[in-house]
Formats: sequence, structure tokens, C-alpha cells
Amino acid sequence: MLVLKKPDQMRAFSEEQRAQGRTIGFVPTMGYFHEGHLALMRQAKDLADLVVISIFVNPTQFGPSEDLAAYPRDFERDSQMAEQVGVDVIFNPEPADIYPEGFQTTVLVNELIKPLCGVNRPVHFKGVATVCCKLFNIVRPHLAVFGEKDYQQLLVVDRVVRDLNMDLEIVPGPTFREPDGLAMSSRNVYLTPEQRKQAPALIRALRHAQEMVEQGVVERDRILSEATAIIQEQSEAQIDYVELRTIPDLHVASEMPKGRHLLALAVRFGKARLIDNTVLPFPE
Amino acid sequence: MLVLKKPDQMRAFSEEQRAQGRTIGFVPTMGYFHEGHLALMRQAKDLADLVVISIFVNPTQFGPSEDLAAYPRDFERDSQMAEQVGVDVIFNPEPADIYPEGFQTTVLVNELIKPLCGVNRPVHFKGVATVCCKLFNIVRPHLAVFGEKDYQQLLVVDRVVRDLNMDLEIVPGPTFREPDGLAMSSRNVYLTPEQRKQAPALIRALRHAQEMVEQGVVERDRILSEATAIIQEQSEAQIDYVELRTIPDLHVASEMPKGRHLLALAVRFGKARLIDNTVLPFPE
Repeated sequence: MLVLKKPDQMRAFSEEQRAQGRTIGFVPTMGYFHEGHLALMRQAKDLADLVVISIFVNPTQFGPSEDLAAYPRDFERDSQMAEQVGVDVIFNPEPADIYPEGFQTTVLVNELIKPLCGVNRPVHFKGVATVCCKLFNIVRPHLAVFGEKDYQQLLVVDRVVRDLNMDLEIVPGPTFREPDGLAMSSRNVYLTPEQRKQAPALIRALRHAQEMVEQGVVERDRILSEATAIIQEQSEAQIDYVELRTIPDLHVASEMPKGRHLLALAVRFGKARLIDNTVLPFPE
Repeated sequence: MLVLKKPDQMRAFSEEQRAQGRTIGFVPTMGYFHEGHLALMRQAKDLADLVVISIFVNPTQFGPSEDLAAYPRDFERDSQMAEQVGVDVIFNPEPADIYPEGFQTTVLVNELIKPLCGVNRPVHFKGVATVCCKLFNIVRPHLAVFGEKDYQQLLVVDRVVRDLNMDLEIVPGPTFREPDGLAMSSRNVYLTPEQRKQAPALIRALRHAQEMVEQGVVERDRILSEATAIIQEQSEAQIDYVELRTIPDLHVASEMPKGRHLLALAVRFGKARLIDNTVLPFPE
């Protein structure tokens, strides 16, 4: 497994592989791997000849009051885990090589970044869209895998790729969960034992909504209020949002939605802000 | 000479040429060619194996009160001129193929777009940066030639390419002029005969500034006021700006500038807004 630090090295490697007819699958990450990351890497391995991952804690996607400095890092452990999964290259640049002096360009997805996590994290998706655009141009992958846990991010990145005519495919990866259903996240380490016990309320709320739709409930507000109630039972839970939105435009669902819609949650437990979601298949 | 309408056709053509080892030079245009455009195409032909040009009157770079509908168009004449210069492909897409429904991404160069033409044309450079990003991803050129007449545009596009790690070189092309020194522009057709007679005041102002610097004048304000006076002598001239700025950041020049600086003008003559510029080589 190669570790490349400089954008020029990374691009030269990819261009050479492409010239030899090999396909490249890419998983951009901020490191501190859990099984969810590894599942995305395995998925990329299944779909392409080579897997490149990036480990880059991107400063521009953290707001001024967010956890950039505290974001957990462990490159040694990460690289061992990546190697075991069969990753071919880790691209691990320094911030100064990604954002040299004079850097001033932002990729802005005007509508998709406004709702859900965009409300409380206004700079976040600008940073994500911009860094993904840069990483795609440096790594030159044929496809990139993004986890469905960050569903809004997946839609934003897919929109950037289409809107800027970038030559790669964005592939969604299923959310990987702990045995009790908590979605895996690097930020789960911030949970106290008591908060960790309460956190599976998110998946219970999502599963309850799935059951309601299976049983024929079609009223948006009934689903949202029952899902909200399940989370509010937890003493440490503070809800950021519980929302039902259209796919792929993330408009507010109508009162009697038809077809696939996204039920998305963001809930704070102390220092940890957890997100989760599911796609609800309303009858057409 | 090929004329391609669809982005997919264009990209497939370029990928095939690249795979065969041929280099592609690109000149994006809004059509209605004059000798200035043809000079950029000849320059691209000198630098690359193949020349692709685009003809696309990009709606997103016109403000609501600007001349989108009136912008001069003549595809038949343009394609004959391009063929004579040896252009290999004209990419001539429809707006709906460049901006399909749901399109919502903007490439924003945060600082460079503020001064000079950015003051009175606030949406212009967002539109330019975004469409260039798209065109580069569709045409996949090794280099793209941009005229120095639109010097701010040249700096903006070069900044986008560097900031987003796009794999092409931006090459400046010298400004092509009428015998009396007026910079060629598709918008010169808007000039009345009297305005056309007055318009060379722009190049006279620039040349006067060059002579001042050659003769050792180093005071910014003296140069600006003498250049301004030459334009103000014209009865129909309305000055938008006469400014001295740093290269490549376009900061306001200091009172006693050192090294290369951009002297840039924008002047309205009736319906026509003309721009021109020169690089002044102050002593280091």
C-alpha cells in the first residue's frame, strides 16, 4: 500500500493507472476509521480495479465553533486497517498543499445545502463540495463511494458532479450500524456511557416510521410526531431536526407524500451531534 | 471540421483523442468572431495538436439588465471563419444541455471578482467561472487560451483552475487591435460612428501611461489622473473605472508601485461598455 502526500504525486499515480486501463474507486475520509469506513472501502474494491482513499481532516467544512481541533485522529491505526481491507493508496495531504496561499474558490450548491444540516452548519457543505471537487480532480477516480448515513452530503456531492460535468460516478454506500442499531460515526466517541445507552433511540424512531409506512400510514405529520416522541423520551437527547424531505431535491414533503422520501434526524447528546436517516417508500 | 452539440459527444471525442496521445487546445467563445478570436485560435493551434472552440452565449454571465438577448450571433459566418483558421471541432451546445433542470451549482472566486468589472457586473464572473469549469470538464483540454483584453477574467479563470486542481494550463493571448488601436470586441458593433471615432481614447490613455512609466514616473495618482483626463476629453465617454491594480491579486496599487501592475479601464460610449488594459512595468 502506497501513502502519497503531494497532490502532484497522487495525480501522476492515477493518470498512469488510467493510461494502463485500470479503474479507480475512491473513498474520501477524515480518518479515525470504524467498520462503516471499511465497508465503503470494500464496496469500492468490488467496483474498481484499484482503491484510493484520502485521509484529510478538511478545515473548511468545520464551522468556527465546531470540533476541528478535537476531531479524533490516528493515522497509524487507520493505515493498518486500510491495508487489511486491500486499499492500494492512501492520499494524505497537508492542509497547506490543499489550500495554498491565495486560495479563494468556493463550490456552492445553492439549494441543497440550505435545509437539514445546512441550517445549523452553514459553512459545512460549502467546504465539503469544494474539497470533494478538488479531491476528485487530484485523484481522478472512475467512481467515489459516499455513505448514506450522510445522505444530504451524498446528494450535494452528486449534484456537484452532475452540475460541473465531472467525469465520475457517485455510488451510495449503505449505513453500517452497531449491533444495537446505532449508526457508526467517528463522533460516537464523544458519547458518555449514559448517552451511548440512549443513542439507539434514533434507529428506533426510524424503524418505527418504516413500520408505520408499511402499515399504510401516509400522513407526514403523524409519522414525524411519533418519531420525535421516541427520541424525546431520552433524557439527554436534544433534537436539532426530525424532517421528511423529497429525494433528490430535499424539498419539504407534502402532507400526504407519494413515493420515496427521506426521513432525516439530527440529535445532540451532550458534545456529540448524531445524524441518521432512512428512505421511506410511500405508495406512489 | 466537426460541429458537436451534446456534452457527451464532446467528451467522448476528447477522451478518444487524448487516449491516442494528441494534445487539445481550447478557446471558449461567445461567437460573433473578429480577428481577436481568430488570433486566439491560431495561438491554440501552435500549442496543441488539435483545436476545439466552443460557441456558447452563456446566459449566467449576463446580469438582468445586460445585453443577453441582443448579444450578436452568426453561427454560419463563425463556423466558416473557424474552419479557415484550422479549428478541428466547434462545440456548440444548447443552454438546456449546459444548465438542465435542477442545476444549482456556482463556482465562486471570492476576492478576485470584487474589484474592477466585478463592481458593476456582480453576477458576471460567477457565471464565467462556473461555465469555464463545466466546459473544461466537458472538453478536457490540455490548455485553454484566454485573451488579455479581459485580464480580470483571465486571472479569475486561472485562479479557478489552480484552486480546484484542474488539469490544464491557462495561456494568455495578446489583445488584438484595430489599426487605430481600439481593442477588438464583439461589442464594438454597438458604437455609433461618432462613438467609434472617440473610442481610441482608451488605447491613447494606456499608451500615455506606458510612456510615463518609461520616463520614470512612479506616482500612481499622477498616472491615473493623466489617463483619466485623456478619456474625459471625449464628449461621449462615461468612465466606469480607471484603476491601477496588483497582479495577480488585483489589490489596489500602492502610491509608489513596484514591479508589474495592471492599468485597467472600463468606459461607456452610449450602449457600448468597452474595456481595455495594459501591464505597466514599474521599476522593482
